[in-house]
Amino acid sequence: LITSAANPRVKLVRRLRSRRQRDRLGLFVAEGEDLVEAALAAGVEPAEALVDAERPALVDRLPGAERVAPALMGELSALGHAARVIAVFRRADLREGFDAPIGLALWRVADPGNVGTLIRAADALGPAFVALSAGCADPTGPKALRASMGSIFRVPLAGFGDAPRPRVALVPAAAGALWDLELGERATFVVGAEREGLPPDVIADCDETATIPIAAAADSLNAAVAGAIALYEARRRRR
Amino acid sequence: LITSAANPRVKLVRRLRSRRQRDRLGLFVAEGEDLVEAALAAGVEPAEALVDAERPALVDRLPGAERVAPALMGELSALGHAARVIAVFRRADLREGFDAPIGLALWRVADPGNVGTLIRAADALGPAFVALSAGCADPTGPKALRASMGSIFRVPLAGFGDAPRPRVALVPAAAGALWDLELGERATFVVGAEREGLPPDVIADCDETATIPIAAAADSLNAAVAGAIALYEARRRRR
Repeated sequence: LITSAANPRVKLVRRLRSRRQRDRLGLFVAEGEDLVEAALAAGVEPAEALVDAERPALVDRLPGAERVAPALMGELSALGHAARVIAVFRRADLREGFDAPIGLALWRVADPGNVGTLIRAADALGPAFVALSAGCADPTGPKALRASMGSIFRVPLAGFGDAPRPRVALVPAAAGALWDLELGERATFVVGAEREGLPPDVIADCDETATIPIAAAADSLNAAVAGAIALYEARRRRR
Repeated sequence: LITSAANPRVKLVRRLRSRRQRDRLGLFVAEGEDLVEAALAAGVEPAEALVDAERPALVDRLPGAERVAPALMGELSALGHAARVIAVFRRADLREGFDAPIGLALWRVADPGNVGTLIRAADALGPAFVALSAGCADPTGPKALRASMGSIFRVPLAGFGDAPRPRVALVPAAAGALWDLELGERATFVVGAEREGLPPDVIADCDETATIPIAAAADSLNAAVAGAIALYEARRRRR
């Protein structure tokens, strides 16, 4: 039973709250039964697992799990509610690459909820990959993981620069409507940052542009909504 | 210049952090230039306005605005970053009713980010109303307001029970695909709670059901994504 905050496993979980430490170690923390179960179902085994000593979860499937005093477990949550299980995973065990006909390439989408929601949408409306530029929220951070609802363990992730062509820039205006876009077997939809959208050089490097037409008085669509709608449109065409 | 936390206007802003107090007084607080500007552009005037004494915003359009000491202004933010302007609005001044051919009816959508995102989507992909059941997050709470990006001042809001027919329940499976749904001039898309979805009696009271088909391994779609996709589909048909 772990009761001390000085325990090395406990210290590792705390350390991984920092994105810099996650980047350095190539590790991340998933909290809660839903996420850890999604990992196991996808064949991804944790490097470490901690379970609440009084209400342990998934222990039969986590043979190396350590029991932790409930009070300490409560302090370990980055999301503010005590999880029954917390596990450390290796980023290298996540799916990587562009192994899907359709995908999203996210340009500086900085809100972790949006990144997680788009990974979840790529899972549901895919198969689709998600490519991320520098400046995107860490998909393995706590809020993005929660929003991904376990899809993080199923969706291939990759870097922005290598996203396959044709690339379709989703832009707020001055392009043909998404529903009129000619779509072939493959497409990468490029989604811009929450406020700034896509910069001109990124748009210029795309093969096509498309707009989700919106009402004149309205401001814009949420980045996660725009990306998910593009995936829906591609899915609808494949029906 | 307001420097005291005991100032009645300052106390009112603090009091309105509580949903119960917002419900009781019929007032809510919008933080930041974007939201307050969206209100003014929609012809909605605040009951009170406070501006940062050192970097006041929108003062020429807020004649009754009071200047507040910067340190106190910082403490007033419910979102954790100091706003240059904070204004109190009357809920009764928001648009009400079903004055749009298309709309969403949200059943116990409890996440304020989802409620705000759907109001923003109704604005962009509408014109569309948003009807809310008991148990929905308060659309005038701080997180929902931020996610709505000002759309709260443009989108008609209403109660769930009176949403016009035909009502189309968005369900995760066992119904025809959304893209095959026959849509007439009017439709209300009914969106379920984040985890539980729609209960059988609510589905039974709908006129139709529709599914956004998702991959087998995936869990489900985020409620905000599902509602926004339905609005997109209706918008696409009206092209």
